[in-house]
Amino acid sequence: MTKKVTITDLAARAQVSVTTVSQILNGKAARFSSKTVEKVKQLQKEMGYVPDFNAQSLIRKSGRTIGVIIPNMNNPFFSRVLLGIETEAIKQDYVPLIFGSNNSQSQETHYLFESVRRAADGMIIASAVSDINYIDNILNQNGIPYILIDQAPVVKGDRVDANNQKGGALLADYLIKNGHTDVAVVCATKPTLNLQERLAGFVETYKNNGTPIPEDRIITTEMTKKGGYAATKAALATKPTAIFGINDEVAIGVYRGLEEAGLKIPSDISVVGYDDIDLGEYISPKLTTVHQPAFEMGTNAAQMIIKRIEDHNEPIQQVSLPVSLVERDSVRAIN
Amino acid sequence: MTKKVTITDLAARAQVSVTTVSQILNGKAARFSSKTVEKVKQLQKEMGYVPDFNAQSLIRKSGRTIGVIIPNMNNPFFSRVLLGIETEAIKQDYVPLIFGSNNSQSQETHYLFESVRRAADGMIIASAVSDINYIDNILNQNGIPYILIDQAPVVKGDRVDANNQKGGALLADYLIKNGHTDVAVVCATKPTLNLQERLAGFVETYKNNGTPIPEDRIITTEMTKKGGYAATKAALATKPTAIFGINDEVAIGVYRGLEEAGLKIPSDISVVGYDDIDLGEYISPKLTTVHQPAFEMGTNAAQMIIKRIEDHNEPIQQVSLPVSLVERDSVRAIN
Repeated sequence: MTKKVTITDLAARAQVSVTTVSQILNGKAARFSSKTVEKVKQLQKEMGYVPDFNAQSLIRKSGRTIGVIIPNMNNPFFSRVLLGIETEAIKQDYVPLIFGSNNSQSQETHYLFESVRRAADGMIIASAVSDINYIDNILNQNGIPYILIDQAPVVKGDRVDANNQKGGALLADYLIKNGHTDVAVVCATKPTLNLQERLAGFVETYKNNGTPIPEDRIITTEMTKKGGYAATKAALATKPTAIFGINDEVAIGVYRGLEEAGLKIPSDISVVGYDDIDLGEYISPKLTTVHQPAFEMGTNAAQMIIKRIEDHNEPIQQVSLPVSLVERDSVRAIN
Repeated sequence: MTKKVTITDLAARAQVSVTTVSQILNGKAARFSSKTVEKVKQLQKEMGYVPDFNAQSLIRKSGRTIGVIIPNMNNPFFSRVLLGIETEAIKQDYVPLIFGSNNSQSQETHYLFESVRRAADGMIIASAVSDINYIDNILNQNGIPYILIDQAPVVKGDRVDANNQKGGALLADYLIKNGHTDVAVVCATKPTLNLQERLAGFVETYKNNGTPIPEDRIITTEMTKKGGYAATKAALATKPTAIFGINDEVAIGVYRGLEEAGLKIPSDISVVGYDDIDLGEYISPKLTTVHQPAFEMGTNAAQMIIKRIEDHNEPIQQVSLPVSLVERDSVRAIN
């Protein structure tokens, strides 16, 4: 085992002082001859010297670190959100520390502590399992700002989401227009706030249409492909002409359930989803859904938390991004 | 903005010394009365005190941190690998710092430096874009062990992968058994080592069967659903009876290309993939593929790197996990 290369090793090889090396590697190269600068930078590469994080954050007064906690890395919706966060963070020279809580409260708490321990300057939290007052307490006490994204419950702080109420209403309007008054919904057993709003927008639109959705037509399950698949039988038992999978993953599970029940989409039954993950275009028939701007939710969250890190006194920011109906091939007009 | 809660604040409130608090929070509570221990732990929660990472790693002699660089968070195969890494890391009280390089060499280098700066004790690298000698230099110079996983190129160090040569051969045998001697392959423009081996196993089996695959039947594209979709036309132009998508994502793209060309799988044409991502069971018809133990690749990589971190003198470990054919509904026997 080699020992970690230190700034002293590098300075000795370059035959300059430690201060000179430190200043050159911290953006103050202009003070030195280009020959010295080049020599130091060349040796840094050769010797594999990496400046120490703690030393550097002392100099810069910030570690330029954003802690990110998401519930489920296996859902492509969150992969897109992460990509947005990473893209914006890199642009502004911040480093995202990404933690997946796998929907476990103990893992979430563990990673929340780790983010604080590792000197996160701010946090983006897209997870809904924890008690928000607990999160708020830990982060506030340590002076760390945070932003809630998508499914985290409402508090008075910064927040970015997409308009779920409207998205639910868009789908309901579209199904009603196509003659589907008998619909079943496959939703979460413990719906997070965004799912509650999505469902409320959908249910209310049906109610206002004079065709309310009976409670037994709202089937609850796990928010995965597997969950949607498992719930299909119960949904079919209510004899709907269309099924709303509360997200695309669930709708794709319903596709499989219907296929195994010998039903064709959309000739025998219609299906809609929510999120617009790229997969929706690759299954057959292509899935009609609501587009959520996942990537933009990520970039917006990163922009907002960086703004907050750099000025704790900014007014509270709450951004609700627009959603839109994506009409594909999974709904048949039956009127 | 509140200031970060310090150990001194906590000690003052608890009316004990800083040393007492430090020892209680670092697993040496047995020396103190249960009343004192309880008081300190209760106040830690109330005040939201999080021990400083640097102070703690000095005490423990290690930050118990594993840096992880993966090429693409959007591929469910890597999400499974990550889940395996996380699961094992948590079990052994390590924290994974996860970075997605988005197949960009500059991002990869950036995150490699960040991992070293943030005191990673070891690295798991599943990325193939960088010059391996460059990685080896930086990490070796800093005494940081690393393990290569899946698509990273071979070096003499620790490594975990699945047997790609055999997986390719399994698929070829199966297709030949079902009468498909005219096959097209949709592969990567710049195949990484694992893809090269997979292709070699496939191509060699056909050669040994006396039905070699002509070069023009090997179509190259991007390793995504979109890439598979875009390559379908060129693959069809070679009039194959079956198409091998070099991974499941590509095969799912081919499904869409065939659907749009008006062809039915498997009655008009057969398709096979590789990876066994969960989606393969949710598309129609269900995809015949080779199972790669993605989760186990993650747990094995984490186990191996932790072993290496804790003993740099362990002999070199190279694990090749078994693969198996998963026969579903996307291949028709034509003989």
